[in-house]
Amino acid sequence: MSHSNVLFATNRNSSRADLFSRAEDISADLSKRAAALDRDGRPPLAEIVKLKNSGLLNALHAPEIGGGGLDWVDGLRLVRILARGESSIGQLLGYHFVNSQYVYWAFDEARARVLGTETAAKSLYWGAAVNPRDPGLVLTRRGSGYVLNGRKSFSTAAHVSDYINANASLDGKIVGFAVPTSRPGYTANDDWDNFGQRLSDSGSVEFHDFPVYAEDFVDATDQPPPVLATFNTPLIQLVFVNFYLGTAEGALRAAIDYVRTTTRPWVTSGVERATDDPYILERIGEFTAALKASAALADGAAAAVQANLDKGHQVTARERGEAAAEAYAAKIHATHVSLDLTSRIFELTGARSTAERHRFDRFWRNVRTHTLHDPVFYKAKEVGEFVLNDKIPQVSLYS
Amino acid sequence: MSHSNVLFATNRNSSRADLFSRAEDISADLSKRAAALDRDGRPPLAEIVKLKNSGLLNALHAPEIGGGGLDWVDGLRLVRILARGESSIGQLLGYHFVNSQYVYWAFDEARARVLGTETAAKSLYWGAAVNPRDPGLVLTRRGSGYVLNGRKSFSTAAHVSDYINANASLDGKIVGFAVPTSRPGYTANDDWDNFGQRLSDSGSVEFHDFPVYAEDFVDATDQPPPVLATFNTPLIQLVFVNFYLGTAEGALRAAIDYVRTTTRPWVTSGVERATDDPYILERIGEFTAALKASAALADGAAAAVQANLDKGHQVTARERGEAAAEAYAAKIHATHVSLDLTSRIFELTGARSTAERHRFDRFWRNVRTHTLHDPVFYKAKEVGEFVLNDKIPQVSLYS
Amino acid sequence: MSHSNVLFATNRNSSRADLFSRAEDISADLSKRAAALDRDGRPPLAEIVKLKNSGLLNALHAPEIGGGGLDWVDGLRLVRILARGESSIGQLLGYHFVNSQYVYWAFDEARARVLGTETAAKSLYWGAAVNPRDPGLVLTRRGSGYVLNGRKSFSTAAHVSDYINANASLDGKIVGFAVPTSRPGYTANDDWDNFGQRLSDSGSVEFHDFPVYAEDFVDATDQPPPVLATFNTPLIQLVFVNFYLGTAEGALRAAIDYVRTTTRPWVTSGVERATDDPYILERIGEFTAALKASAALADGAAAAVQANLDKGHQVTARERGEAAAEAYAAKIHATHVSLDLTSRIFELTGARSTAERHRFDRFWRNVRTHTLHDPVFYKAKEVGEFVLNDKIPQVSLYS
Amino acid sequence: MSHSNVLFATNRNSSRADLFSRAEDISADLSKRAAALDRDGRPPLAEIVKLKNSGLLNALHAPEIGGGGLDWVDGLRLVRILARGESSIGQLLGYHFVNSQYVYWAFDEARARVLGTETAAKSLYWGAAVNPRDPGLVLTRRGSGYVLNGRKSFSTAAHVSDYINANASLDGKIVGFAVPTSRPGYTANDDWDNFGQRLSDSGSVEFHDFPVYAEDFVDATDQPPPVLATFNTPLIQLVFVNFYLGTAEGALRAAIDYVRTTTRPWVTSGVERATDDPYILERIGEFTAALKASAALADGAAAAVQANLDKGHQVTARERGEAAAEAYAAKIHATHVSLDLTSRIFELTGARSTAERHRFDRFWRNVRTHTLHDPVFYKAKEVGEFVLNDKIPQVSLYS
Repeated sequence: MSHSNVLFATNRNSSRADLFSRAEDISADLSKRAAALDRDGRPPLAEIVKLKNSGLLNALHAPEIGGGGLDWVDGLRLVRILARGESSIGQLLGYHFVNSQYVYWAFDEARARVLGTETAAKSLYWGAAVNPRDPGLVLTRRGSGYVLNGRKSFSTAAHVSDYINANASLDGKIVGFAVPTSRPGYTANDDWDNFGQRLSDSGSVEFHDFPVYAEDFVDATDQPPPVLATFNTPLIQLVFVNFYLGTAEGALRAAIDYVRTTTRPWVTSGVERATDDPYILERIGEFTAALKASAALADGAAAAVQANLDKGHQVTARERGEAAAEAYAAKIHATHVSLDLTSRIFELTGARSTAERHRFDRFWRNVRTHTLHDPVFYKAKEVGEFVLNDKIPQVSLYS
Repeated sequence: MSHSNVLFATNRNSSRADLFSRAEDISADLSKRAAALDRDGRPPLAEIVKLKNSGLLNALHAPEIGGGGLDWVDGLRLVRILARGESSIGQLLGYHFVNSQYVYWAFDEARARVLGTETAAKSLYWGAAVNPRDPGLVLTRRGSGYVLNGRKSFSTAAHVSDYINANASLDGKIVGFAVPTSRPGYTANDDWDNFGQRLSDSGSVEFHDFPVYAEDFVDATDQPPPVLATFNTPLIQLVFVNFYLGTAEGALRAAIDYVRTTTRPWVTSGVERATDDPYILERIGEFTAALKASAALADGAAAAVQANLDKGHQVTARERGEAAAEAYAAKIHATHVSLDLTSRIFELTGARSTAERHRFDRFWRNVRTHTLHDPVFYKAKEVGEFVLNDKIPQVSLYS
Repeated sequence: MSHSNVLFATNRNSSRADLFSRAEDISADLSKRAAALDRDGRPPLAEIVKLKNSGLLNALHAPEIGGGGLDWVDGLRLVRILARGESSIGQLLGYHFVNSQYVYWAFDEARARVLGTETAAKSLYWGAAVNPRDPGLVLTRRGSGYVLNGRKSFSTAAHVSDYINANASLDGKIVGFAVPTSRPGYTANDDWDNFGQRLSDSGSVEFHDFPVYAEDFVDATDQPPPVLATFNTPLIQLVFVNFYLGTAEGALRAAIDYVRTTTRPWVTSGVERATDDPYILERIGEFTAALKASAALADGAAAAVQANLDKGHQVTARERGEAAAEAYAAKIHATHVSLDLTSRIFELTGARSTAERHRFDRFWRNVRTHTLHDPVFYKAKEVGEFVLNDKIPQVSLYS
Repeated sequence: MSHSNVLFATNRNSSRADLFSRAEDISADLSKRAAALDRDGRPPLAEIVKLKNSGLLNALHAPEIGGGGLDWVDGLRLVRILARGESSIGQLLGYHFVNSQYVYWAFDEARARVLGTETAAKSLYWGAAVNPRDPGLVLTRRGSGYVLNGRKSFSTAAHVSDYINANASLDGKIVGFAVPTSRPGYTANDDWDNFGQRLSDSGSVEFHDFPVYAEDFVDATDQPPPVLATFNTPLIQLVFVNFYLGTAEGALRAAIDYVRTTTRPWVTSGVERATDDPYILERIGEFTAALKASAALADGAAAAVQANLDKGHQVTARERGEAAAEAYAAKIHATHVSLDLTSRIFELTGARSTAERHRFDRFWRNVRTHTLHDPVFYKAKEVGEFVLNDKIPQVSLYS
């Protein structure tokens, strides 16, 4: 499963400007190929290699170990930029950011340093196998270690992950650990077949006597996870936010290109070019306003989460909750905006833009599919509980 | 191109109840196969044969010639029923209704009787090649008659039409005529490949020295068409309305089935079954109200158009305009409701319902594709002109 | 409290056309005075007298006793017509219809005949004192009869009611009865002061040793009310629907008048008259479509309720429930449409139309106030329960 | 017209924190009295005195002359804070900011210094008389100077302005000037009577031989105004944005207070307190997300305008246009959000919250009235022109 034999040396210590520039380039290239990639719907092995070579996978790692040193505000913007080109690639970058940074929050410092250094050095891609709605992994003691068995129905980045965070039951309790997928007994199945996020490689994985060792575990104690180790949820939700918005921004760009080059003025419009149509202009203004508002909120929420993350293990559950509420408000808004806009770009482009070769429906299919990850009405309820009743969101892999 | 060698004798003079019952049966059958039909996206030859055998193609013809004798209110409801099962089949039934009834409005009585009688006797399917945004057919005199040459980019029911209404230029003017597709020189290409209405068989057609005779022509005069001959536009728009609504109704039904059988209650919902979720229940109530309102308006508009159609050649341009404004109001409303609902059913069904095997995205893809036929904002403008400035819609193939 | 010394003889057995014509006249007159009436916010004593004189109060009574013989479909349309002129007057006509017809459903035939005949003969106005969220009336036995004491916070038509339906507790149970307000001990207070429906005369009433007699009671048994006696709820909800829609129709008419006469074209619009503005035209088209759809659903629901009402005491709880679900779907839709439209008419009329002398905000204030009668989200939930789980609405004064 | 004899000495050189703290205090106080102030609808003389005493009027002036030294991002936040308490007071603070800062952009440096220093020293309130839709002021030469005559229909802050910017025609051209209202011949009429922004003191003003001198004029040349002098439009639009959002935030706060203290749980809700109602919670979550998004966009647009303003006379028309487009996108969004939310808070609070004593309708009345200043559809068109056609907004007092 390893795809790490890549040339990344030249990308060590990329500057912020370099990383953004490379993200823009990759995004622009993806947008040209996105229709074809969507049609094929294959695990994006080559695209992940490009991310590795570009240094983007290491963007959040510390410069000392070869990372880009970016904070989450920037990291999430990179997700948005990539999603403009192709939605799943944005998703995959974001998932990797959360999964690879998670080691700093959940493991002790020494172990985190070892994992982080190897990750940055080899530009490893990090996935996860932790869906809480789909239990099914079991650890059993064998010799001095353990073996993992079972199946997860949905495991994003199943084929492209070098390392994964996983959960399994051991002696009736759920334990967490991080393991390389190169150990024997890991199988990524070819069964992701949903109508959207078709490159997200989110099929099932199976573990057959997959070896797990003591040092792989997150925590040996019976304590609940430290507050810091629960930041993965607001951050993964902000990953969602940003790739939804990136997808919608990509949709609007594609529509604008099409209107400029292809859409014909309507017969009774009285204008000579579609670009002068008053209704098309008004809608572009409205869509722009909605997207900008949602992106501004997303950036603000990212800054709020980052500010609390910076407190390290001093951060309190209350502070985590307040930052999470910001992120969840952004999630609500981005969900509505991205769904609305990806469905309505066709008002701009017109009837012929539904030709299969453009696959302009992919924007809606992508956001429609993933915005169902957890119901937006319950996110709204959680934010309402915070605002009305001063209750912070209850910590879970959904909140 | 002919598919008329079918057993239809037993369907002669079907009762209204029979026709509705058969439509429901065919619709129920279609709904089971709709995902597969949508995947294949082939011209629905077998489905049209079923419509022929069922007597539904003849539903609007007079009982004296073997028709069902239904009026347009009922005819449009049949369209809606079929669209619940599969959207394109609803569309195709409706297009046929308009194209085959058009002969009564546009031809002189004798010619209309000949064409109507043959149509009913053989259960012929009627299409058209008249897209006004895509001129391209040319008639040339040859011998005592004419030959037709050229290409139409989009011709719904291209493979399944037995007869078509067509427009072409002759000596610099546009003339109309009705011809069987079985004459030499008619080619339906296999190039319909849009993301929605994939069974609508709307690819290009070509005419190569296709013979046309004097008696095929609608009208030999230089006069504008009689008012009656312009009812095809409000009626085709009502066909749109009804297959949009039928598609949305089918989407809601499919979603309800899925919620009842498959959707799991959300982890923080506090309910044991998804069917008890307060947000799911509220949305179903809202969707139901929206659909019912739109259907009530559609039925009312159909009755208004029928009432004026009943006046025959006594009907005035003003009366036609008033009835058309009703139809166009219905078009506006059905467009919004069907788009909104086919995108939002997923709020009910949840994340797993995006699996490709369900193809639940087809409902949105279908209405998204066809609602672009003509821009809804210009329909709204036309209705506004009528209400604010008392201007009736300017007659065209879009209004 | 009696205002029945009116000239109504000439209105006996008004024809349907007469009644509609008088309603239109009264509505047109009201619309001219509505701003002033709204400013004053007084109990509309003079307006109710006009309704009495016009025969409209008796529109639903049987012709044999001097009524108009209209069914509910027509009756509710009369409500809509009046509400176009002034919202509260529409409400008051509708409340009277439900309260006065209730005697036919709840009382035994003989008693109903007595009450109905007197009502029609004197053109009595019927109100009610039954708010279930506000208990507070108590019956006590005194001599051979009873006395009523207590207070109701909100009693629509408090000053103008000649007769009322009331509920009170007697020996720990709730009992219903109908009494004239002319008996001693009835006080309508002058304390209705809400920002909308300001003419609805919905202040508090008090009863001080108000005499009630055995024959006033609806039912002496311990049985639940017969199904027929529960039709007041779907019908009062349809009254709401129709006066909301009438108010919204009145708002659109007022806005259209204003645009035609007063609104100036926007400086960058490129048109010479506001009536040619593309955005204004589009919005009028959209508003028209929404209103027509909602009205079509309202009429359909009224017909469904009427059809079941026609079954008399044969009607089943299930049938009542199905008809009620139609009415509640109409309620949901009318709520949204009327709120949206009464707020958005200002997009048509522009900045100067907010001058206090027009009081164009009254349309929104009126629907905003009354649409809170019972929460629309719970109505949506009820309709969802019916559609998803086949549960009919639980009978109450709200459902 | 002068109200500058106030104690402001103690507020000189207020710190940023002080200014925000005073704004919060004044806002909290206003929110308690807002219903009564709205009922009276008088020019808010006392409230402006409080703003003067607080130092808020000088918040944007340079510290060297006794100002707060805040930038526009902060200044606009102060507007938002005040509008939470009372919408018109927020508007008036914002108008003053734009009108008083305008002297730095439009006058030469020496004159601007004189005016600014006097303004800061006396905490003068600045208004304007420049409505371009309502020409009507005429300058005539008299002696060595000029006299101004004529009438402006709408002049916000008419009674409370110490100084105003004005436009008038002179020799057939429009010229601008700044004058104190204390000169003879200025009359503010008492005729502001609109249903919203009732404290904004926006009635007509008249000038009768009002003296104007050479040094009052903005510019003696025939040149178009410098780019810097056109920043008043994007900034006044951002003032609108921020007082709309502040008003909506105030509405949500008031609603939340009411739900916590007063709203009863619905009879079929199954919860014991309204604060636990799932639909109320969801809506509060949705409203919060919408408000936060709009505020984040508003702040971003303010920063974009400030960054260009900082360029001084180096700023180009293109840069001004780009920043203006940001501001106008914010305007579009804030318009929708504030209208929607101020109408929908009643879904939270319920039927009794429409009692006149709360005047909770004022929030909607306030934003409904002012959001008509210029049509939001033309703002959307302008933003569309920029995004689709790369056309910057055409400079005017509306853009």
